[in-house]
Amino acid sequence: MVTMTTTTPTVATSTAMLTDHYELTMLRAALVDGTAHHRAVFEAFARRLPQGRRYGVVAGLGRIVEAIESFRFDAAHVAWLQDTGVVDERTAGYLLDYRFTGDVDAYREGEIYFPNSPVLTVTGTFAECVVLETLVLSILNHDSAIASAAARMVTAADGRPLLEMGSRRTHEDAAVAAARAAYLVGFAATSNLQAGFRYGVPTRGTAAHAFTLAHRSEADAFASQVAALGTGTTLLVDTYDVPQGLRTAVGTAGTDLGGVRLDSGDLADEARRARALLDSLGATSTRIAVTSDLDEHTIAALADAPVDLYGAGTRLVGGSGHPTAGMVYKLVAIADAPGRDAPMRPVVKKAAGKGSVGGRKVAYRSLDHQGHATREVVVVRHLPGAPESGLGRALQVPVVRDGDVVHQPPLAAVRAHHRGAKAELTALDLDLAPGTPRLVADPTALGNLIGATA
Amino acid sequence: MVTMTTTTPTVATSTAMLTDHYELTMLRAALVDGTAHHRAVFEAFARRLPQGRRYGVVAGLGRIVEAIESFRFDAAHVAWLQDTGVVDERTAGYLLDYRFTGDVDAYREGEIYFPNSPVLTVTGTFAECVVLETLVLSILNHDSAIASAAARMVTAADGRPLLEMGSRRTHEDAAVAAARAAYLVGFAATSNLQAGFRYGVPTRGTAAHAFTLAHRSEADAFASQVAALGTGTTLLVDTYDVPQGLRTAVGTAGTDLGGVRLDSGDLADEARRARALLDSLGATSTRIAVTSDLDEHTIAALADAPVDLYGAGTRLVGGSGHPTAGMVYKLVAIADAPGRDAPMRPVVKKAAGKGSVGGRKVAYRSLDHQGHATREVVVVRHLPGAPESGLGRALQVPVVRDGDVVHQPPLAAVRAHHRGAKAELTALDLDLAPGTPRLVADPTALGNLIGATA
Repeated sequence: MVTMTTTTPTVATSTAMLTDHYELTMLRAALVDGTAHHRAVFEAFARRLPQGRRYGVVAGLGRIVEAIESFRFDAAHVAWLQDTGVVDERTAGYLLDYRFTGDVDAYREGEIYFPNSPVLTVTGTFAECVVLETLVLSILNHDSAIASAAARMVTAADGRPLLEMGSRRTHEDAAVAAARAAYLVGFAATSNLQAGFRYGVPTRGTAAHAFTLAHRSEADAFASQVAALGTGTTLLVDTYDVPQGLRTAVGTAGTDLGGVRLDSGDLADEARRARALLDSLGATSTRIAVTSDLDEHTIAALADAPVDLYGAGTRLVGGSGHPTAGMVYKLVAIADAPGRDAPMRPVVKKAAGKGSVGGRKVAYRSLDHQGHATREVVVVRHLPGAPESGLGRALQVPVVRDGDVVHQPPLAAVRAHHRGAKAELTALDLDLAPGTPRLVADPTALGNLIGATA
Repeated sequence: MVTMTTTTPTVATSTAMLTDHYELTMLRAALVDGTAHHRAVFEAFARRLPQGRRYGVVAGLGRIVEAIESFRFDAAHVAWLQDTGVVDERTAGYLLDYRFTGDVDAYREGEIYFPNSPVLTVTGTFAECVVLETLVLSILNHDSAIASAAARMVTAADGRPLLEMGSRRTHEDAAVAAARAAYLVGFAATSNLQAGFRYGVPTRGTAAHAFTLAHRSEADAFASQVAALGTGTTLLVDTYDVPQGLRTAVGTAGTDLGGVRLDSGDLADEARRARALLDSLGATSTRIAVTSDLDEHTIAALADAPVDLYGAGTRLVGGSGHPTAGMVYKLVAIADAPGRDAPMRPVVKKAAGKGSVGGRKVAYRSLDHQGHATREVVVVRHLPGAPESGLGRALQVPVVRDGDVVHQPPLAAVRAHHRGAKAELTALDLDLAPGTPRLVADPTALGNLIGATA
C-alpha cells in the first residue's frame, strides 16, 4: 500500500509577473504624479462576440480570484524589475508591499454574456487596479473562449455525454484550465489528470493505439487491458480493421464489454456498422464512443448515429475557431484626488472603432413570463446603491470586498448556475449556425432610459 | 534601495500530472503483462501542416527538456491516483519511483519542419515513454504553432522590429511560452514580464489608454509619462484625436520624443498622416509604432507605410488562425522482450486517414549549391549508427541520453539556428499566400531508395 499521509499544500505560485511591462511603467509615472492613489473603476467586457456566435459563457472567475490572491511580487522579481530598468526605487517599494485591497464584482462563473455586458468590475486605487489588467484578461479570455465553445458542443450533443480530451493540443497549463471550463458548462469528464487532482473534475481514459501496437496482436492487447481494467473498460477497435477489432473485443471481454472507441473514418457510418455488429454478437449494452477532431458541427451531424459518448479535443481547446474571447479591461471612472470619498468622473476613449461608454455599469437580465431572456439591461452609474427593481435578474455579484474573497462557489454550483442561465436562452440563441447575438447591451441608451446619471 | 539579496530558486513544479488518464491505465495493464519493460521508440510528427502553410518551425524543445526533468509524481499525486482508482498498487509504486532514463533525439529548436518530419524521438522502456505523450505534445504543439505563425510575421515585417504583446488574449502561462516562441524566431521583444524574468526575453512597454484617461488631460498624462520615463518614451496618441495627440506629444517631449503609438483606425493612413505631421513639427526621428490585431497579412500590407515597429498580439498567440501544430506522438518500434538488447519490430496503425510509417526515422535536409533546401530525406531504420553521408544536413541532435540532458542551448543560439535554417527556404516557401509545403518527407520511399531496412 502506498503511503497516503502526505497532503498536498496549496501551491501559491506568484502570479505577479504574468503582467505586461506597460502596467508597471504606468504605475511608475502615476506614483510620481499622485494618480496612483486616486480611486478608479475598471471594467472587463467584450465589444463584440467572435464572428457568428450568438452568446458567450463567462468562465475563469474562480481562477481569477485565486490569481489575485497570489499576486505578490517577491524580492527577486522586484530586483529584476529594478535591474532591468522597468521600475524605479519608489515603484519597487510599492510592488514589494502590493496586496489588492479593492473590490471585484462580476457576472457569476457560468453566466451567459453578450456584447458590452460588464462581465467583471474592479474598483480600488488606480495603482492596484491597473496592474491586474493582463492577468485578469488572460484568464477571462482563455477560459471564456473554451467555455463558450464547449457550451455549443453540449447543445449539439443533446444529452449524450461529452469527454474533454484536448490537452495535447494546447499549452500544458492551458489544458488544465480548458478541462475545468468544459466541465463547468456540462462536459461529463476530462482526460486531464491535473484537472482532476486540482479541481475535482472527473477523469476518464483507457488506451491509445500505442497499447495495441505494443502487443504481438490486438487480441493480446485487449486481453491485457481487460485483465487489468475489467470487462467494463472501453477497447479501441480501429488500430487494424474495425469489424475484426469488434469481434476480438467481444471475444475477449464477452458481451458485458463496457465500450468500444472509434477514432477514424466516417464516424457515423462506422458507428452504425459497429452497433449492428455488436448487437449481432450479443453485446447490446456495449457503448460506442467516438473521437477524432469533433466540434459542435460534427457532433450535431452524428445526432442520428448510434453514438453513446463523444470525445472532443483539438477543436475544443482552440475554442472551436475562436481561441480568445476578446475581452478588454478599460478604465471607466476615476477620481481626481486621493481618498475613498473623492468623487469619480466617467472616462471614455474616442478612438475609431474602439469607443465604449464611461462610468460604472450595473447589469440585469430581463426575462419574459416563460423565463426567456428579453434584454440585457445595463445601467450607467457611479456609486453602488440599492438594486433597481423590476429590471430583471441582477447579473453581478460581489466577489472581492476590501481585498477579501467573498464569492468562491464550488464547481458543482457553477455548473448548476450555468444550466439555469443557459435555460433562459431561446432556440434562436442556441442555433449552432452562424448568427448575431439577439441581446446586445447598450449602456448609454438604457442608462438614459431609466434616468440614471452618467 | 530595494534589497536584492534574495535569489529566486528554480521552481521545479512537478509536471507529472499534466498527463492524460489513459497513459496511466495503459501503464497499469502493461506492468501486469510485462510490456512496460520492453524497449520502445515513440516519434512526434505532423501528418500535415495547418491549411495553407508551407513550412513549420519547431519550438518548445528547451521547455520539454525541463518538463521531463520535472516529471516526478509526489506522494499526494499517487495517493489521489490510487484513491480515485486510476492506478493500482503496483502502478502506484512504479510512479513514485518514476524518472525518465531513456533518450530523446530531436530537430533543434528553431528548425524548420515539414509533413512527416520526425521532429522528436523518445526511446526507452514502453512505460517510461508512454507517460510522456501528453506533456511532450502539449509543449511541442503550442510552442510550434506560435513560432510558425511568428516566423511568417517576421517575414512580413521585412526587417522592421516586432513586439509580442498578446499575453492578455491567451492563457496566462501560455502567454509566457508564446513570448519565448516569438522571440526565438526573430521578434525583438515582448510585453510579458515573466518571459523576461524567466527566459531573458527583452521586455518593452510604456502606457495604455487608461493612463491618459486617468489624467485630467492628455497633456497632463504625457507630461507625467515623460517626467517619469524620459523623452525617449513612446506616447500613445489616439485616445481622443490623433493630430491633436501628436501636437501635444511633441509639445510636451520636444522633437527628441522617442516614439508614438497608434492603436486604432486605418493604420497605413494614420501612420502616413502621423509621419507628415511629426516631420512638420520637427520630430523627424520620432518613431511610429502600430498595434491593433496585426497578423502577417496586415503587417505585409503596411510595408509601404512609414511604420517603425509592429506590435502583434491576439493573432500571434492564436497561431494566426492555427493555435496548434497538430503533432502526434506515435509508437513506431517496440521489442517483444525486456532488456536493452532485445530486437525491436516496426509498428504502424492501419486506421483510415491516419496511417504512418513504422520504424525509427533518421532525417536529413538536402541542399542545393545555393544552400536552398531541396529534399527532406527520412530514412527508416531500427538502430542508431553512423550518419549516412551525402544525404544533406543532419536534422536530429541528441537531447537526452540515459535521462541526462545533453542539449540545452541558450535562446541566442536557438535564434541563430533558426535564422540559418530559414535562410535555406526559398521565396516560394516564404510566400505568405496560402499554399502547400514544397518539401514533404516520405519515409517509406526514401527508406527503400537508399536500401535501409524497415
